Amino acid sequence: MSETRMLASFILGCRSTDLPADLRHEAHRALLNIIGCALGGATHPAVDAALRAFRPMSGPAVAAVIGRGERLDPLHASLMNGISSHVLDYDDTTPKNYGHHSSPVASALLAYASVHPVSGGDFVDAFTIGFEVSSRVGNAVYPAHYDVGWHMTGTAGVFGAAAAIGRLLGLTETEMVWALGLAATQAAGLREMFGSMAKSFHPGRSAQNGYAAALLAQAGFTAGEYGIEGPRGFAAVLASRCDLSRITHRLGVDFELRDNTYKPFPCGIVIHPTIDGCIQLREAHAIEATAIAAVRLRVAPLVLDLCNQHDITRGLQGKFSIYHAAAIGLVRGRAGLNEFTDEAVNDREIARVRGITTAHADASVTEDQAQIEVELDDGRRLTTWVEASLGNLKRPMSDAQLETKFREQAALLLPPSVVDALVDRLWALDAATDVREIVDLTVPATVIT
Amino acid sequence: MSETRMLASFILGCRSTDLPADLRHEAHRALLNIIGCALGGATHPAVDAALRAFRPMSGPAVAAVIGRGERLDPLHASLMNGISSHVLDYDDTTPKNYGHHSSPVASALLAYASVHPVSGGDFVDAFTIGFEVSSRVGNAVYPAHYDVGWHMTGTAGVFGAAAAIGRLLGLTETEMVWALGLAATQAAGLREMFGSMAKSFHPGRSAQNGYAAALLAQAGFTAGEYGIEGPRGFAAVLASRCDLSRITHRLGVDFELRDNTYKPFPCGIVIHPTIDGCIQLREAHAIEATAIAAVRLRVAPLVLDLCNQHDITRGLQGKFSIYHAAAIGLVRGRAGLNEFTDEAVNDREIARVRGITTAHADASVTEDQAQIEVELDDGRRLTTWVEASLGNLKRPMSDAQLETKFREQAALLLPPSVVDALVDRLWALDAATDVREIVDLTVPATVIT
Repeated sequence: MSETRMLASFILGCRSTDLPADLRHEAHRALLNIIGCALGGATHPAVDAALRAFRPMSGPAVAAVIGRGERLDPLHASLMNGISSHVLDYDDTTPKNYGHHSSPVASALLAYASVHPVSGGDFVDAFTIGFEVSSRVGNAVYPAHYDVGWHMTGTAGVFGAAAAIGRLLGLTETEMVWALGLAATQAAGLREMFGSMAKSFHPGRSAQNGYAAALLAQAGFTAGEYGIEGPRGFAAVLASRCDLSRITHRLGVDFELRDNTYKPFPCGIVIHPTIDGCIQLREAHAIEATAIAAVRLRVAPLVLDLCNQHDITRGLQGKFSIYHAAAIGLVRGRAGLNEFTDEAVNDREIARVRGITTAHADASVTEDQAQIEVELDDGRRLTTWVEASLGNLKRPMSDAQLETKFREQAALLLPPSVVDALVDRLWALDAATDVREIVDLTVPATVIT
Repeated sequence: MSETRMLASFILGCRSTDLPADLRHEAHRALLNIIGCALGGATHPAVDAALRAFRPMSGPAVAAVIGRGERLDPLHASLMNGISSHVLDYDDTTPKNYGHHSSPVASALLAYASVHPVSGGDFVDAFTIGFEVSSRVGNAVYPAHYDVGWHMTGTAGVFGAAAAIGRLLGLTETEMVWALGLAATQAAGLREMFGSMAKSFHPGRSAQNGYAAALLAQAGFTAGEYGIEGPRGFAAVLASRCDLSRITHRLGVDFELRDNTYKPFPCGIVIHPTIDGCIQLREAHAIEATAIAAVRLRVAPLVLDLCNQHDITRGLQGKFSIYHAAAIGLVRGRAGLNEFTDEAVNDREIARVRGITTAHADASVTEDQAQIEVELDDGRRLTTWVEASLGNLKRPMSDAQLETKFREQAALLLPPSVVDALVDRLWALDAATDVREIVDLTVPATVIT
């Protein structure tokens, strides 16, 4: 049986009882995190711009958009949820393939559940399975696919969204094969877009396109049956090397959500160790920003590949600048949403420290690690070594930390009572009768018309 | 200046008077051809299925769909026009990059012109420029991009649609750069889908996505500024080898439409020489199908790469079977729309001849050529050599032949008086006051509600 068909069979056949309790809890953590990120990003100018472009094109305004007053058709709502949940670069990461799989999968599901009755249990199942599909497709083509310049969240995410929606629609196996083929032939997203709004467009579009793939298949729109493994299929065309066995090996036994991580800082994951270490150094030595004469970093080579932007002016660029990471850690001692605004990037002191920061790639340093040296005006050199940055698999964010992160973002839009209710309902999602009620809670009371 | 910005500057700055008369005439030929193909394909099950899936998601029903009674928002109308104009594999081909550039560009433009006033002159300009952009992007990455398995019509087409719509929207240069970046990051379409409805989805989605890219850019949604030429941009990621100079060399001086060709048969272009030769052989020797004992073909290697499907059951597969090509030429002496239906593919005599046809790849044979040998029951061997098949650049279809092709397809849906009016108006498109009137003429009188 082909990999595409084996996935289709798994997507439709996996039962709720096949998903163990620890995995279901991880799904709840992932959903709390991604919905929080969507609330945090809901008022970003990228969402405003996308709404300006697409609201006049929207179908019936039936689906809620997380954190917004506008309602759209479910496909456009999927797109907006994907943009808002990823635009702050605050969502989750699966380090083994550098995908951010929750955003495309949950964004489509939240839009679907906003217009169709879906129980919490079915929602958690569909999310867990969609995440599984997205991450396994990512595993099969990683690292060649990522290294050449694909943004995994767009390219693998579309499979996850198609899987999740296809399961809820109750597709037949052949329809699910077509949906995966239609996902394969829409897989897109270039890393060249990093630092612009288009990066967040990737999970948005993959949510929307995966949802659309499932609808097309349901309507009898046919696709090639070997979309993933065929000689002109996704894996062969989008990766110079791949290992298809990673799609099917121990499928339904090992689960990808167990390798998922959550970000304490809203920026590229590989600059987290530097931020973490700089905050620690600042606190340990009560460093005054004005006394900093030089900052020298030793980081994993991928850091400079991804985050080597020095001369920056926009908040979105700061999320991909190792120099900005060091500067905000040392100048402000924190890296929250306010440290990645246009204002923060153009702050005089932050810009000064960024300008005197240098970074060297060292293949012996992993993406979870960083060596930091700060030289002060008086000649003192302070150093620290980050062995494993906060949020990674060795130092995972606790449930309490995830809840705090959620509350901080939700409080930007929603009154405390609603934030409390959302937190309670999301931790108890598995038992919810209808997810629509939870989605509706994310909509601010002041409806924009 | 980057290639992306040079293209943006050309798209916005090229004047009507920069496009010489012969080029404008070629644009009229291309538009007559593609609108005819959209009429021919408008009732294909692929269009029906896509409408079932997306009509409930459509925004305001303001835009006409070529050859259909339903109205949709302009983005969905672009998609439907792209599916219908390509699904019969009857549209045009630019042999130097194997793109079918008219479908994505015209599909978006026809949807746009259905809801915004556009003069015929502006429409021809935008089409010519969109075609130019699509084909030049294709040239830059051909052949590596095509060979690995990308469907050029989807991947390059999205740039052409973004260019055409961006020009009509009057984007600024930076907005046009973003639109091209948003096109780059949506470039998709796998050759693995050939033989299924998903192939026609490619130009449809690229029309829709290019249109959407222009809308997003207009709304201030930013993208990377080096979408085509950047180190993680379209060319580097989607092609192992590329030549970016082919995008800008003699831009505005040499024009791609001059290298465009039109198909006499509704199927893959590379099986045209075999059809052509088989029809000629049948006529010259009055061959009875039942007397055929064997058929032996010598064809270009690409033919077997693309069209090696032997055991087929669906009409769409027949369009990509060199064996079916020989069989219909010899059995029916023609290759019209009726020779690529499910019925024709399953016809007993056609299937028998297909089964006794063999094909060998010969690198000395070009994609315009074929060597054909037919062995009869009585032992006679009849042979022919096709030096250049009908429709290619050396034997282009005449204006009269293109008009006949248009009329045959249009007559499937529209009364003779409307067909006559459309033909007249399309040949005189450059002088039209508002293209909307022409688009409306393509809608059958029996409106489906």
